[in-house]
Amino acid sequence: MSHILGIDIGGTNTVFGLIDPNGKVHGKNKIPTQGSEPAENLIQRIFYEVHAVLNHQPDISLTGIGVGAPNGNHFTGFIQDPPNINWGSVDFVSLMEGKFDVKVLLTNDANAAALGEKSYGAAKSMDDFIMITLGTGLGSGMFSQGKLLYGHDGFAGELGHLSIDPNGRKCTCGQIGCLEAYVSAKGIKETLKELKTKYPDDEFLQSLVENTLDGKQLDMAYDEGEKAVHEIYEFTGEKLGYGLAQTAGLFSPEAFIFYGGYSYAEERLFNPARKAMDEHLSPSQKGKIKLFRSKLSDGDAGILGAASLFSVK
Amino acid sequence: MSHILGIDIGGTNTVFGLIDPNGKVHGKNKIPTQGSEPAENLIQRIFYEVHAVLNHQPDISLTGIGVGAPNGNHFTGFIQDPPNINWGSVDFVSLMEGKFDVKVLLTNDANAAALGEKSYGAAKSMDDFIMITLGTGLGSGMFSQGKLLYGHDGFAGELGHLSIDPNGRKCTCGQIGCLEAYVSAKGIKETLKELKTKYPDDEFLQSLVENTLDGKQLDMAYDEGEKAVHEIYEFTGEKLGYGLAQTAGLFSPEAFIFYGGYSYAEERLFNPARKAMDEHLSPSQKGKIKLFRSKLSDGDAGILGAASLFSVK
Repeated sequence: MSHILGIDIGGTNTVFGLIDPNGKVHGKNKIPTQGSEPAENLIQRIFYEVHAVLNHQPDISLTGIGVGAPNGNHFTGFIQDPPNINWGSVDFVSLMEGKFDVKVLLTNDANAAALGEKSYGAAKSMDDFIMITLGTGLGSGMFSQGKLLYGHDGFAGELGHLSIDPNGRKCTCGQIGCLEAYVSAKGIKETLKELKTKYPDDEFLQSLVENTLDGKQLDMAYDEGEKAVHEIYEFTGEKLGYGLAQTAGLFSPEAFIFYGGYSYAEERLFNPARKAMDEHLSPSQKGKIKLFRSKLSDGDAGILGAASLFSVK
Repeated sequence: MSHILGIDIGGTNTVFGLIDPNGKVHGKNKIPTQGSEPAENLIQRIFYEVHAVLNHQPDISLTGIGVGAPNGNHFTGFIQDPPNINWGSVDFVSLMEGKFDVKVLLTNDANAAALGEKSYGAAKSMDDFIMITLGTGLGSGMFSQGKLLYGHDGFAGELGHLSIDPNGRKCTCGQIGCLEAYVSAKGIKETLKELKTKYPDDEFLQSLVENTLDGKQLDMAYDEGEKAVHEIYEFTGEKLGYGLAQTAGLFSPEAFIFYGGYSYAEERLFNPARKAMDEHLSPSQKGKIKLFRSKLSDGDAGILGAASLFSVK
């Protein structure tokens, strides 16, 4: 039976699996991306792992490979300066096709997650929705009129770099006030730093270390009632909601769906975000736009979506 | 031969014409909208004018009517609280169908202009572009993947109410910092007021009267080198360019195309706007997005686009 290999490349780990024509995932695997090594290194390791599976399953034939990667460009096949990975600009599709000898399609990681949610998840019946990945940065994949939005040159959907305040924080991209500078691991660390200065006597807050901070840790502290953490999510949610309202005025989506590490905060973050979004929406949109976490199991949206590049037009 | 009646309802005037299957406009006419009267009054006057034409041209049969109107909702057929017109919320499609006894389709005025430009103008070969109407307010019609973007509920494309500064001007919609509060007749009047305070000794500036100000007057003064008017367009262009950059990051359009009274400023406004847009775009988009005025003759984009509601899916 013909299978598509779906690959979701992340800054830390790369997940992949063989997807059958019914959308079932076989031989799912997670390996370190090792972004300090050249891209060929990761490709070689995926090649070995996948062929180990294929050698034991002679009934499976590999007919294509779909890849989701940070800064993956669907039109050029290049991955361009992915954050936290030292590849520079690399013609990933050519490298992969040279190695695997099957057709390879590439898109960015947030687009892949959006495709997965559309094909197999909560967005099956939605024509207009926006998938937001909350990881180190903030990525987005937008479905418009039932199709993934690439725009004229493949660079559409940069919600992370929508400026929500021309006098706000400086973003690593060089612009000012980008949503990502507030709503992402990077942004939350910055907020934590500011709150440490604001509350020098809050022992719990002072005990948090920016560089090892993760969403799980914050969620636990939130649930235990740590006031400073409530303030972090309140502030982050307000910024997120403000940005979502601006985006909703342009796209009028049915839902914003969240994915990635910080999306597990769920209502801790979505509640203040929904409130701020509704405050800044036009009366005709207020109260109508849904916010929720991806309904697919961990990592599956990315690899299912990457594989489904072969079935969407 | 079967014709479609295209109608472009504006705050001051309403333009209409009969469009033949080749996109040629016949019997084009402009009448005052008289927005202080009920909608039935305008419909009655259009009815008489159109039948006067039809009675003299027995070979023309009216097979449908397309309408573009401020706040016209394609899905409900209602025109909802149009600015500068006292109709409240009116089921315009039902009223029209009751009077003319043919199928009537409605969309908002900026969408109609975008459809016209796509069908007959400069955007024929573009799949992704944004039409911006610069009149009393700022309206927008967005083409995405070759189709007009309505979003989930028909409210997509509200570029006029994208906030470009959370600490900026209060907009008539109740939100803060909307693009329309800077880039529109309303916005420019506000800017003029501010500059009058800033330059109490500028005689030309003090001679301008907010309520009778129009684009032509400003363009002439600009061309004569009036410094304050250069400053008005510089400031307005910067705000516009900043808003366009935010929008381009989300949509990645090939072009922004301008329409309406203030679009005649052309390079006086587009030049500073392009500069500001490029400053705030990501490196991959810089220098690539076009800004220009509609290439159709006056008013034609609106009525051609309204009529073409019958030929697009």
